[in-house]
Amino acid sequence: MSVLETINSPEDLKKLTTKELETLAADIREALFNRLTKIGGHCAPNFGIVETEIAMHYVFNSPKDKFVFDVSHQSYPHKMLTGRKAGYLDDAHFHEDSGYTNPDESEHDLFNIGHTSTSISLASGLVKARDLKGGTENIVALIGDGSLSGGEALEGLDFVGSEIHSNFIIVVNDNQQSIAEVHGGLYENLAELRRTKGTAPNNFFTALGLDYMYEDNGNDIESMITLFEKVKDIDHPIVLHINTQKGKGFKLAEENRELWHWCMPFDRTTGEWKVKFPPETYTFLTNNYIMNKAKADKNFVMITPAMPMTAGLNQEQRKELGAQYVDTGITEEHAVAFASGIAKAGAKPLIVTNATFMQRTYDQISQDVCINNNPVTIVLNFASCIGLTDVTHLGIFAISAFANIPNLVILVPTSKEEYLNMLDWAVEQKSHPVMILMPGNEVTSRAADKDFSNINTFKVEEKGSKVAILALGGFYQKGESLAKEIEKSLGFKPTLINPRFASGVDEKLLTELEKDHKLVITLEDGIIDGGFGEKVATFYGASEMKVKVYGLKKAFYDRYNPEDLLKSQGMSNEQIIADIKALI
Amino acid sequence: MSVLETINSPEDLKKLTTKELETLAADIREALFNRLTKIGGHCAPNFGIVETEIAMHYVFNSPKDKFVFDVSHQSYPHKMLTGRKAGYLDDAHFHEDSGYTNPDESEHDLFNIGHTSTSISLASGLVKARDLKGGTENIVALIGDGSLSGGEALEGLDFVGSEIHSNFIIVVNDNQQSIAEVHGGLYENLAELRRTKGTAPNNFFTALGLDYMYEDNGNDIESMITLFEKVKDIDHPIVLHINTQKGKGFKLAEENRELWHWCMPFDRTTGEWKVKFPPETYTFLTNNYIMNKAKADKNFVMITPAMPMTAGLNQEQRKELGAQYVDTGITEEHAVAFASGIAKAGAKPLIVTNATFMQRTYDQISQDVCINNNPVTIVLNFASCIGLTDVTHLGIFAISAFANIPNLVILVPTSKEEYLNMLDWAVEQKSHPVMILMPGNEVTSRAADKDFSNINTFKVEEKGSKVAILALGGFYQKGESLAKEIEKSLGFKPTLINPRFASGVDEKLLTELEKDHKLVITLEDGIIDGGFGEKVATFYGASEMKVKVYGLKKAFYDRYNPEDLLKSQGMSNEQIIADIKALI
Repeated sequence: MSVLETINSPEDLKKLTTKELETLAADIREALFNRLTKIGGHCAPNFGIVETEIAMHYVFNSPKDKFVFDVSHQSYPHKMLTGRKAGYLDDAHFHEDSGYTNPDESEHDLFNIGHTSTSISLASGLVKARDLKGGTENIVALIGDGSLSGGEALEGLDFVGSEIHSNFIIVVNDNQQSIAEVHGGLYENLAELRRTKGTAPNNFFTALGLDYMYEDNGNDIESMITLFEKVKDIDHPIVLHINTQKGKGFKLAEENRELWHWCMPFDRTTGEWKVKFPPETYTFLTNNYIMNKAKADKNFVMITPAMPMTAGLNQEQRKELGAQYVDTGITEEHAVAFASGIAKAGAKPLIVTNATFMQRTYDQISQDVCINNNPVTIVLNFASCIGLTDVTHLGIFAISAFANIPNLVILVPTSKEEYLNMLDWAVEQKSHPVMILMPGNEVTSRAADKDFSNINTFKVEEKGSKVAILALGGFYQKGESLAKEIEKSLGFKPTLINPRFASGVDEKLLTELEKDHKLVITLEDGIIDGGFGEKVATFYGASEMKVKVYGLKKAFYDRYNPEDLLKSQGMSNEQIIADIKALI
Repeated sequence: MSVLETINSPEDLKKLTTKELETLAADIREALFNRLTKIGGHCAPNFGIVETEIAMHYVFNSPKDKFVFDVSHQSYPHKMLTGRKAGYLDDAHFHEDSGYTNPDESEHDLFNIGHTSTSISLASGLVKARDLKGGTENIVALIGDGSLSGGEALEGLDFVGSEIHSNFIIVVNDNQQSIAEVHGGLYENLAELRRTKGTAPNNFFTALGLDYMYEDNGNDIESMITLFEKVKDIDHPIVLHINTQKGKGFKLAEENRELWHWCMPFDRTTGEWKVKFPPETYTFLTNNYIMNKAKADKNFVMITPAMPMTAGLNQEQRKELGAQYVDTGITEEHAVAFASGIAKAGAKPLIVTNATFMQRTYDQISQDVCINNNPVTIVLNFASCIGLTDVTHLGIFAISAFANIPNLVILVPTSKEEYLNMLDWAVEQKSHPVMILMPGNEVTSRAADKDFSNINTFKVEEKGSKVAILALGGFYQKGESLAKEIEKSLGFKPTLINPRFASGVDEKLLTELEKDHKLVITLEDGIIDGGFGEKVATFYGASEMKVKVYGLKKAFYDRYNPEDLLKSQGMSNEQIIADIKALI
């Protein structure tokens, strides 16, 4: 029996000797391998933080003492130590543990977290409530150096530096890496602090009014226990700056921390990922476009807030792009305003990131970009119910979040050709801020227009009658298949429309449809509320036209099968055809 | 003729002697008095920055050199110096100048800006484009100390500290004041830097990798000219930390910088504002609620991101509230996550601020609050087309921005009693994050329910037939008046419904309406796109019920008269009655 197998709660851990704790660390790394090689997940962050989390549970008393993990993709060791080891040791139990902290799983988890830079603010709220209620527990936030560049974390640190005067321990896990390499002036200061073992007089944390301690051996259990014992029950906020090695104990991850930040199932010996990527993906097409465009036009600049992989950009390509590539670090807000400035001055900015992270920029898109109508192009990867299915990373809110901001043109391509034409049109034109949603389905090929300057003009792809299907972006192929099914089973040919724009309706075309259609169906890859279909239903509200809007109910979904989810909400061809029969 | 009257462009300024420049500064202050006493606007920020902006235009060459003003509510002197003095000297021209920079007014203005903390990011975009294009102009951002606490500014500073290696001048205007007093650890550091004339070894700016200079005499033209001359054409980014006096030259504003941050028209001698506030406002009711609630419940905590005035909280009241009041500084994101932590730990957080500023927290509301379903209460002031009519401060996007986030309950009260009952219910309950939109119209009195736990149950206030009016929040009284007009001019009594919830529909009630109604009308105080009416239209999409949604078209409106705007979009009683006649 391994030491890990004896741990059912943090209580069990406290009885162990240092040597046993070290064995426990090795057991945890084995358990990480067991799960990650089989189902993938966040990799290097967990390998690097094993000793810290053992020491946290050894010194503090969770759940009385409260831990908040930033992003929480480094909470696997914590989960193993708090009654959830089966999720790592036993294949049959993998599905019981999400890849993030989750209060539904354990009283040791305070929040469901998946976006970065939130831990300091969330934990400072726990501090405030404790103080109002007269509690005495320790509150500990654990945040990586990469997450520090996010505005929410910086706001939180600054706030704590002057407004909190009671126990609060902020562990800054400095592994010298964000998702990709770190970007930002504060990382020079972290490096200086590491070089001087925390003694440099110029110190970002103390400049914000925070107490500070440095620990160089963040992967040494005894050092970490000593550090935590020093600050346990401290009466004011303190930053513990610890130096750790991302990927520690997994050689391949130690050597390529970016590649192994997150992984698919892999072969432990070779490191080869057990996954077959399709021969062509929208990410790959984006990558190709960027590399060619940058060469052809020196005013083109590719920007990403720490997510170069969303455009498939590897390290060599980024180097090749030189000044035409900017990783802003984890700073979505800054990235959007920065792009607005670039566009204002006549250069051609393209931002690429995941849809879910772009949510942080509603205000910047509205104020910094759209009020100014600057021609920024934003491409969102995973703006779909397909792809990322963790509750904290859903792409199904993209249309609803952004389509209602004035001046923003949202394009939803339906094929490889249309995607590339839209991308090129968006980057070249000077009249609108444009957002393009990468389709979530596999790449298909269809001829496409090149000019999209007639905003909100839909395209009739197949002219029929009675029923018109408006099938948006990645759901266009669903519309195609539905149209065929209708013809086969209902005996008439419906009209199939590619709306191309998700941010408005083609009033002329919709009016024309009234002549020989009784029902309009909208199909979109996102929630119904605030989405495209609602605009169509509202347009026809006072007319005789019936409208049925297909999309997901407004809700947070977690770790679902997309096909099952769509079916559970009546979106299979059979279900839609049954609806049509009842309606016409 | 005053010196200011001789200035038609920055060129004219460059010919003046120091003495003449000083006279110009006095002229500018007189012009500020002229406009502000008559039409109000941002006051103390402009009085304090006169010498800086004169020196900027004296040393640099706008529009070749580019200035970006954070928030831009301190750009009045700049406007006077760039061909727009009539907007300050001549009552007939006041309307030509917005209270913010505006590219439509002048080539000297780069962006339309009204939210804080954006200047560094926007200007760094101008820097990037200049460098790609091989330009040589100076780029200057002017940001106040208060704005520095905002995440976007902090992200921008950190980015510039390592990623920009060319000319960029960031002027930090340290007047030791935000809108209210400053909050955040960095302000201790700014104070230390002022005390040591910029020589303290621990320096927030240099810790972020930025070059730094300090000027203690920010209100001295010669000192400022010397400073700018030193850094003109500098080849790397630098922070110029200048010490100025907010309200300088206006004694009342020097003495009470918070009160005079922004003003209504006033009597110059007495300082009395020439405005009659109604005897009762929703802000006043909120204030009263907070003071009583805090006394009665030690777990209640009032939070605001630098906007205590949105709850009418004066300095004495804040002192009285003690630990139950938290001004987080300009940190909307942190404030929301902080509140989520407080709610998670069982205390009762209430956030109050302006609707327009809350836009910055779409992601925090979604991720930090709503995925976790923590019972945070958020009250938004000015969530209406009435009140704030500057394009950068519109409240008409509140429903559309937030109503489509799962788990969030949005309440829209229709009277004083309903508002207070909703507020108390929201703060006391533990099941939902709740947002309450303060009505934009004047306070009215009507009996109201106390329990809102049956989410999305609408209330039939008057039962009629044929037409049902769903009149939301501050537009409920419009609905009442419309119902009376319908009865009078169309001869039947319509049903009048108070939806109370803007974030979902009452499916049972809407289904019942189908029995004896042919038309449903929705009235909401915001844009149609993504709003409440669209949900109703979508619900009825495939039924026989006709739906007509009334609200504003998705657009950015600027300095409008609300009544005229509503009329221009067909929302007067007469226009709606004409629509009804045509439809039934």
